[in-house]
Amino acid sequence: QQQRHLYGFTGVTLAKWLITITIGFLVGTVAYVIASHQELVTTAKKRGIMMALNNGYGLWTAFAGYCLFGITVVTFASCLVIFWTPAAAGGGVTLVMAYLNGNDVPDFFRLNTLFAKVIGTLCTVSSGLPIGQEGPMVHIGGAIASSLTWMQGYVPRRRKNGTHQQSGSFFGKLKPKFFVFDFHNDYDRREFISAGAAAGLAAAFGSPIGGVLFALEEASSFWSKKVMWRSLLCTSVATLVLSWLHEKEFSFALPGTMSFHNLQPEFVLGDLPLFVITSAAAGALGSLVNALHAWLARIRPPSDKKLARLAEAILVTFVIIVMMFVLAHLGGTCHFVPEGTDEEEFWFQYTCPNPVDGRAYYNDLASLYLAVPRQSIQKLFRLGKDAVPAFAKMTLGIHCVSWIIIFSLAYGIATPGGIFLPCMVVGSSCGALLGMFFKILFPNVDVQPGLHALIGATAMLGSMFRTSISVIVIVVEGTGGVDFILPLILAVVISNWVAHHLHHESAYEIDLGNIGSITFLHNEPTHAMIPITAADIMSENVECFPEIVTVKTVVEVLKRTRHNGFPVLRYSTSSPQADGPRTQGTFVGLVLRHQLLLLLEQRAWITVESPDDTIPIIPGPENCIITNDIWKIEHAMRVYHHCHNPHRRYLTSRAEELEMLDITEPETTSLESTQVQVQNGESVPQENGQRSPEATNARKEERALDLRPFMNRAPLTVRAECSAQRVFVIFRTLGLRHLCVTDAYNRVIGMITRKDIANAQKRTHFAQAQDDLESKGANAESMYHLP
Amino acid sequence: QQQRHLYGFTGVTLAKWLITITIGFLVGTVAYVIASHQELVTTAKKRGIMMALNNGYGLWTAFAGYCLFGITVVTFASCLVIFWTPAAAGGGVTLVMAYLNGNDVPDFFRLNTLFAKVIGTLCTVSSGLPIGQEGPMVHIGGAIASSLTWMQGYVPRRRKNGTHQQSGSFFGKLKPKFFVFDFHNDYDRREFISAGAAAGLAAAFGSPIGGVLFALEEASSFWSKKVMWRSLLCTSVATLVLSWLHEKEFSFALPGTMSFHNLQPEFVLGDLPLFVITSAAAGALGSLVNALHAWLARIRPPSDKKLARLAEAILVTFVIIVMMFVLAHLGGTCHFVPEGTDEEEFWFQYTCPNPVDGRAYYNDLASLYLAVPRQSIQKLFRLGKDAVPAFAKMTLGIHCVSWIIIFSLAYGIATPGGIFLPCMVVGSSCGALLGMFFKILFPNVDVQPGLHALIGATAMLGSMFRTSISVIVIVVEGTGGVDFILPLILAVVISNWVAHHLHHESAYEIDLGNIGSITFLHNEPTHAMIPITAADIMSENVECFPEIVTVKTVVEVLKRTRHNGFPVLRYSTSSPQADGPRTQGTFVGLVLRHQLLLLLEQRAWITVESPDDTIPIIPGPENCIITNDIWKIEHAMRVYHHCHNPHRRYLTSRAEELEMLDITEPETTSLESTQVQVQNGESVPQENGQRSPEATNARKEERALDLRPFMNRAPLTVRAECSAQRVFVIFRTLGLRHLCVTDAYNRVIGMITRKDIANAQKRTHFAQAQDDLESKGANAESMYHLP
Repeated sequence: QQQRHLYGFTGVTLAKWLITITIGFLVGTVAYVIASHQELVTTAKKRGIMMALNNGYGLWTAFAGYCLFGITVVTFASCLVIFWTPAAAGGGVTLVMAYLNGNDVPDFFRLNTLFAKVIGTLCTVSSGLPIGQEGPMVHIGGAIASSLTWMQGYVPRRRKNGTHQQSGSFFGKLKPKFFVFDFHNDYDRREFISAGAAAGLAAAFGSPIGGVLFALEEASSFWSKKVMWRSLLCTSVATLVLSWLHEKEFSFALPGTMSFHNLQPEFVLGDLPLFVITSAAAGALGSLVNALHAWLARIRPPSDKKLARLAEAILVTFVIIVMMFVLAHLGGTCHFVPEGTDEEEFWFQYTCPNPVDGRAYYNDLASLYLAVPRQSIQKLFRLGKDAVPAFAKMTLGIHCVSWIIIFSLAYGIATPGGIFLPCMVVGSSCGALLGMFFKILFPNVDVQPGLHALIGATAMLGSMFRTSISVIVIVVEGTGGVDFILPLILAVVISNWVAHHLHHESAYEIDLGNIGSITFLHNEPTHAMIPITAADIMSENVECFPEIVTVKTVVEVLKRTRHNGFPVLRYSTSSPQADGPRTQGTFVGLVLRHQLLLLLEQRAWITVESPDDTIPIIPGPENCIITNDIWKIEHAMRVYHHCHNPHRRYLTSRAEELEMLDITEPETTSLESTQVQVQNGESVPQENGQRSPEATNARKEERALDLRPFMNRAPLTVRAECSAQRVFVIFRTLGLRHLCVTDAYNRVIGMITRKDIANAQKRTHFAQAQDDLESKGANAESMYHLP
Repeated sequence: QQQRHLYGFTGVTLAKWLITITIGFLVGTVAYVIASHQELVTTAKKRGIMMALNNGYGLWTAFAGYCLFGITVVTFASCLVIFWTPAAAGGGVTLVMAYLNGNDVPDFFRLNTLFAKVIGTLCTVSSGLPIGQEGPMVHIGGAIASSLTWMQGYVPRRRKNGTHQQSGSFFGKLKPKFFVFDFHNDYDRREFISAGAAAGLAAAFGSPIGGVLFALEEASSFWSKKVMWRSLLCTSVATLVLSWLHEKEFSFALPGTMSFHNLQPEFVLGDLPLFVITSAAAGALGSLVNALHAWLARIRPPSDKKLARLAEAILVTFVIIVMMFVLAHLGGTCHFVPEGTDEEEFWFQYTCPNPVDGRAYYNDLASLYLAVPRQSIQKLFRLGKDAVPAFAKMTLGIHCVSWIIIFSLAYGIATPGGIFLPCMVVGSSCGALLGMFFKILFPNVDVQPGLHALIGATAMLGSMFRTSISVIVIVVEGTGGVDFILPLILAVVISNWVAHHLHHESAYEIDLGNIGSITFLHNEPTHAMIPITAADIMSENVECFPEIVTVKTVVEVLKRTRHNGFPVLRYSTSSPQADGPRTQGTFVGLVLRHQLLLLLEQRAWITVESPDDTIPIIPGPENCIITNDIWKIEHAMRVYHHCHNPHRRYLTSRAEELEMLDITEPETTSLESTQVQVQNGESVPQENGQRSPEATNARKEERALDLRPFMNRAPLTVRAECSAQRVFVIFRTLGLRHLCVTDAYNRVIGMITRKDIANAQKRTHFAQAQDDLESKGANAESMYHLP
């Protein structure tokens, strides 16, 4: 058996690495398609505007055409999201985080969500809205990983009752013969989804290491060396494929989407305060955007008002396009296109005069608005110390302010789209503006506005997402500017510090707050958890079962409660009238709702005799013999989620499932249950033998479940005296879902679930917020507790 | 109290950040001193040789002078290590890892170890031995952090018995008034030491992010956001200071110790197999070096033979210097110094002809041997596609092979010194050699030997240390070559894979194996742990105490065993004659050896009456009232290690400590114990009241300890059925030291300690090695399980 075991592992390992490489390949391809599509459409739209202007149709016609196109694609994307796959809305990073933290996010990784997300992102990025593809790429990466791991899974035989139907996806029916491994467990899926998400971000920014670090720092709640290796392979394959497709030949160079080469890594002591000012300003701006986003999220139409959401998307698109055209017309200034620059398509003539002496004019604000975001960022980064002033200060000011407004408006409408790159655009234009002012104010310091743009963009990312290393590495890999790493670290540290004092939450936390149903466990317990104990956070009145429990009781409890885990108790029979505590039963195991449902569905019950409706007390041996049938049921339990709910990882407690099982009260002992009893014969006789002496007087027969072979016989428990902080750490690091609280005699006195922990977090958060009013100083510490 | 609590936190936070910055500052300074010292001495030595040659004293004189200097400094460093601070030997990274994993490494972070390490490293790097300062910098960083956190700690009042004397360090006596915070707990110290180690590596390579990732991936076993932020700040301060000192003006540029600028990031499909070959070759070389190191470690004189170790150090130095001089004379070739290169001092004339027409000659092998390692690496990296062939192929071949031999010899002698940079030198010369061959073999592919040198160096690091992301980031930051990141990832993945198949262990694991006393818990459980349970790995026959235990029993058990944790049991008194199991006692808490020692030292005993020498059974309330005295003892327990053993974190069980306490059998009830009884009066009467009915007949008085106020009342337990894998994860992620194994009735049936886990690891490692012979395929999976 050991041999087969090892062979099995090896095969699975190979399959896993192949899947990892495939994920990287697909993610890279999708990223390329989206990016090149965006560039093509943007260029075509600009050409259209210029054709309209040059042929005398006027700005109004150009505007109408632009607007019509934008509204059409946004409407399409919005309809896709609202009426078909609501899970595809927004960036998706938050939900990937929530999923990897252990939440059930229904339909989030389905194939149709993936499809809608790709199509929707293509539409959104080509609409001209200030929305990026980086967040969606993280979701797409995760969804590709999920689909690939699920596709080649084991497909169960069809059963006559309805529970199986809901997994009837197209690919599920293919049942590929060549892949025989099934990744039923959470660990494997989580690993692949982490790797996929990392690859998504890596492909979006051209940053293989940054993607891994993003997954490590933000996306994944559980991390190991294995996940690191898998993510690294996945991100590098994705980046490689992207780079190859971009270059049209096999190339190892980083795509370097935002590279610049004309900044000098020369800084002097005098630069330091200027860097600090820029970082602090961008950090403040980041928390302002967060606050704006949180406020807007409250006044947007709720997700169940579908038409209102559609109208919102259309209205927002219209307003944004109007703003862009009007501001570019009124606020933009005309310059000569600087010589010797590449990417000529960036410089956009708009309403500026026609070329004079072969030198073309461009409208600086229109160029910034209508370009692909990464081109704008690149141009701002390239403002060297002796560079031509390609943008007027007025332009940068208008751009910075207006862009904050329009991207806050746009982020949250019912289309796929993220805010990484728009946020970098704001940061870099704010930084460049400050850099230009510094150039005037301190003429004897060699200020490079492009460097301030770089610092501003990084600080903005840092303050909006409260990340540290990953954002630095992403920026370094994306721009190739490894020499600027020390100012970037400074920017991230200062902006995090400033942002924390202004607005408590990161963009992810705001989103998590808006989604009510998510219980997100942060990395560290809050301070206020220190003085309280497990007894303070546990739920009392736990529903428990004895080791052998009547079907009636189980059905009744399952219908009545929505719990997912039930402690199993052993009742002492040798001296049932003994000291009080013992009659409460000793905690011997934990059984899950889905296990009970499966036992009921398979009719795996035995018959017992009980005097009346009370729980039968059966003196059994500590362990019962495991038969083949029990093994089969055990296996079915393991693959339960995979078979029944491939896209809903955790069974939420729905009463209708119970009805579907069609458990009726037996008039007599049914044929079926007798059969099962015969099958289980090997285990039952012992008990029968022991039971018979007591069961002499007239008792009615009762169907019951023997939970002993199926329950988790080694569940972790804590004492009521255990500090809540420690409970949190145990819960979080081990990824538990149920933790029983016991006393010294191993009696269950409470149960702690994710919800209890999350409630304690919230309670204490609230308490802490009140304390903060009294003593502001506490912030400096708790800052580093936040994720 | 909440208010004061918060204020307290804030003050501690500020102090922590100040300490972090100070650590970074000091580490950066030390790194600068060592690096510039090395350069100065190396240049001076070369000048000395040239003076000897030019003035006609001949090569023999030069050799004698060089040799004499080398042997003198090595002897000095070796004496320092052997006769004063044995903990300062070698690189130290392994022991930092072991410490952060939770081991007791005596004297490792003392001030005199730090001092000896700095001085010793200065000596070693100036001796000309192929030994780097990177490993020692990690140790120095950790030691600086440890000293700083400890220095400002709380110094206990002097006690009359001897236990206090051993903490009498100079700085301990200063008792600074301005810092009132004490970091007694492991968590804080671990955080600072992680940050210090990260800063050490960052300063050595000029790589702030790489240092953090090194600490994350290799050094630290426990990691959190907080540690990440602290390490990031510490590494960036260290790098900044280093950069500033190097530039002699305030600069933000990375020190970039190994930068190159003439490689083009242009690769085509044809390069891919060549990259793979170079990576695989360097990976194989890395595992060869590991195997050589493991073999040499076995035949070196043991550390207790001090004179033999000193002789070894001198002999090895002599042999190495002879090899260098002879090989450079015989194997080196003379070239013209290429024009337009900086760092002219690298090119070393040695025995080559004098300059002709103003163009100087140099001996290529002598240049490589006698240069600072980072200069050699830099020169090899700069071999571009059209570069002059600065080194002959013969030279590179000799250099690569001889360098492997001499650095394997040198790594392990009794001096401070690491192998990071020497290992990169070997890798890069091997890569450059292969690149030159490829250039001849495939003339139509634009092979850049420097790029192959880069890949070789990275692959070598990857295969020797089995790291992934950190080594890539260190190389990228150290060289500034962010465009080469994809080949570097490839190099690391392939070399890890190759190396794993050739030699199972990384350099760290070999060192850990050589140090017998360390129990290192890896990140992931081994595969063979899956089928076994907690019952298979636990130690049985646990020594337990009742809640109130006689002093005699405690002293006897403490003398007899070397255990550090003792379960506390409650014996049921309501029905002591009841069912069998209950008389074994219920597990209610855990008490540690140092707590017992402190209780004994403070004479905090009560008097009880027991019929004879058996354990007194006292029916007490569940909780006893906590008096002020108990609080004081409790606090003393918390700061115990800080006061008694500041440099030995975990109390090893030494019997002499017990003797020092001077516990004698009382003839009658002593005055002292009566006093304590009066002080504890508030808690005792209740028990007296309850006890008196039973204690009527003649019983002799006995001194006893009441463990209830001090024991850990919420220790984590597992069931015997719990899988060993899960036990490992619990133990590892929560950083436990004792885990009690209980049955369903909460009776203690075993105890699991670090040693048990480590033994299980070894057992199963061995079992796995046997399995590997049968099925080679399993390696591919287990590769990614190794740290």
